[in-house]
Amino acid sequence: MTRADKRLGLEGEYNEADLPLLIRRAGMAEWDNGIVRILDRRELPLAETYLECRTVEEVAVAIEDMAIQGAFSLSIAAGYGLSLAAGNNELSEIETAAARLLRTRPTGLALQRMLDACQDRARSAIEAGDNARDTIVATVDHAAATLARQGWKTGQRAAGLLEDGMTILTHCFPDRSYVYLLMEAARAGKKLNVVCSETRPYLQGTRLTSLCAVQAGFDARVITDGMGGYLMRRGDIQAFITAADRVCMDGTVCNKIGTYQYALAAKANDVPYYTLRQSGPDRESADESDIEVEIRPGDALLYLGKERMAPQGVEGLYPGFDITPPELVTAIVTDRGVFQPAKISSYVDVDPFVSDEIL
Amino acid sequence: MTRADKRLGLEGEYNEADLPLLIRRAGMAEWDNGIVRILDRRELPLAETYLECRTVEEVAVAIEDMAIQGAFSLSIAAGYGLSLAAGNNELSEIETAAARLLRTRPTGLALQRMLDACQDRARSAIEAGDNARDTIVATVDHAAATLARQGWKTGQRAAGLLEDGMTILTHCFPDRSYVYLLMEAARAGKKLNVVCSETRPYLQGTRLTSLCAVQAGFDARVITDGMGGYLMRRGDIQAFITAADRVCMDGTVCNKIGTYQYALAAKANDVPYYTLRQSGPDRESADESDIEVEIRPGDALLYLGKERMAPQGVEGLYPGFDITPPELVTAIVTDRGVFQPAKISSYVDVDPFVSDEIL
Repeated sequence: MTRADKRLGLEGEYNEADLPLLIRRAGMAEWDNGIVRILDRRELPLAETYLECRTVEEVAVAIEDMAIQGAFSLSIAAGYGLSLAAGNNELSEIETAAARLLRTRPTGLALQRMLDACQDRARSAIEAGDNARDTIVATVDHAAATLARQGWKTGQRAAGLLEDGMTILTHCFPDRSYVYLLMEAARAGKKLNVVCSETRPYLQGTRLTSLCAVQAGFDARVITDGMGGYLMRRGDIQAFITAADRVCMDGTVCNKIGTYQYALAAKANDVPYYTLRQSGPDRESADESDIEVEIRPGDALLYLGKERMAPQGVEGLYPGFDITPPELVTAIVTDRGVFQPAKISSYVDVDPFVSDEIL
Repeated sequence: MTRADKRLGLEGEYNEADLPLLIRRAGMAEWDNGIVRILDRRELPLAETYLECRTVEEVAVAIEDMAIQGAFSLSIAAGYGLSLAAGNNELSEIETAAARLLRTRPTGLALQRMLDACQDRARSAIEAGDNARDTIVATVDHAAATLARQGWKTGQRAAGLLEDGMTILTHCFPDRSYVYLLMEAARAGKKLNVVCSETRPYLQGTRLTSLCAVQAGFDARVITDGMGGYLMRRGDIQAFITAADRVCMDGTVCNKIGTYQYALAAKANDVPYYTLRQSGPDRESADESDIEVEIRPGDALLYLGKERMAPQGVEGLYPGFDITPPELVTAIVTDRGVFQPAKISSYVDVDPFVSDEIL
């Protein structure tokens, strides 16, 4: 068994080569002897380009500039990036690098958890006279395998909520759980139609979510971020599905800006809204007051490609995420089960081998 | 007094030169001795380009391709376009041209009304031995002046609903009524902040709505079509304002796709939603079952500029408008008063010179 197979954590389930591009190893970032290799999502689907980052700063900029995104995937990139600072086995250099990487994206907590875990292990390794870099890489490898397995379990449970012939509305790129949802639905002989909200300004829906749907063998259609509500009102959508950058212990969902509007429309039109959150709630986040919503540079909204579309004197206002209150969420799908939002805090008590029932 | 002043119908109120570019004569299309001149909105704000259409087909294509948009403005362009078919004083040529122009955009009724009125007048002129082209041009001139005056009255009433320092959210380009709202607010010493939802794929918000706000002296900020709901939830928006391509007699509003989602978010967050509809409801439309929502070519959603962003095999789904039910509308602002949506059918009974109270 190769290291890649082990990392994937899905031995006997899938060949990595059968998985859509975005959830193969480099889609989540991979470590290759001093290089952090990242599939550049900004170039997809026009080109399959890989960034080869050799410094912490290169990794940080790749994350800031959205070459890789999604709370879990970017945490893996950051973890491997941290190992680039560990060559001298000096804790202070690792801590400086971790501070830089943490500043890249403030909203998801997976990044902070990953950097904390890597620093803890590195500290222990240095104290024990071991190699910090190897320790960090092993920590991130383990996390990547865990994330892959969680994503698969979550996708499997989510696929179980859907029926053959359904049309699902997605927003942004719902990451691994969504892709495994597609793979598992296909395995179960369920044909899904995927409507992808384009997700301005980076068009993750147009470029990534639709790509995975096509690679999994399903029909994909793109809409603008203003259209999903009307499609739900017309009765054209049977489920609204997103990932979450953070889930609070009270069931509040923080996800890509645009999610809240769709969740309102789903509620108003009796369309279930399923949040895919493979690792459950963030224990440190009681409710939305614990969330810092990232404000990104507004200029990204004023241009199409290199051409400025807005008049001089006009500014862009770009909150990267929004907040969906628990009452708009039908269920939060995790690796350990499908939860009503009000009961998501019980995630921590769940035996991962018991039933898939809504708890 | 020039013909332009007369057409504007606002003698003594504004100099046409003081008005923002988009609501000057060519912004609504103008007739110039055998040429229909149209300010090409697709090029704004990068360039101020005028199309000079010499055939009915050129006018039809300009409307279909969104060089001019908005139910009222495009009806003016179509009316002048019809006169291009009247050179031989042959009714059959005029009818053929009207059929072509009517096919351009199915959702707004102003287009059909304009073409019907022009054909009626042309028929009478031909029967009386008069010049059909002159008759059509005079008919459209009169309609343009009426529309300008209606827009001004509507904007004036809408400005009266807003307070100094408010931040308003707009969607698409709410046309003349919105621009007069800005002008009248400025005249009353009220400073407004305008948040413009970009309105994919043509970016009317980024390009046109923001331009008018800046030309009227206000701050303008652009957001994506997914962001307005979150801003309302944060308490950053004090009013949501759009135009309407059609208003039914029961208060249903049909407007640019994306409006419904924002109306839902406005209702959920106690933000008033004001629909600007200068000429009141369409008498032929009892409710939404009378509305045909235009489905536009989906490819427009797959490209940024000339570059295809979606993978091969992916399609675009592009309803041009959506439907907002009356219970989500706070008030419909018209030239004759401010109406609760449930009472909009009383528009036809209103004396235009009585009070501005909500009826």
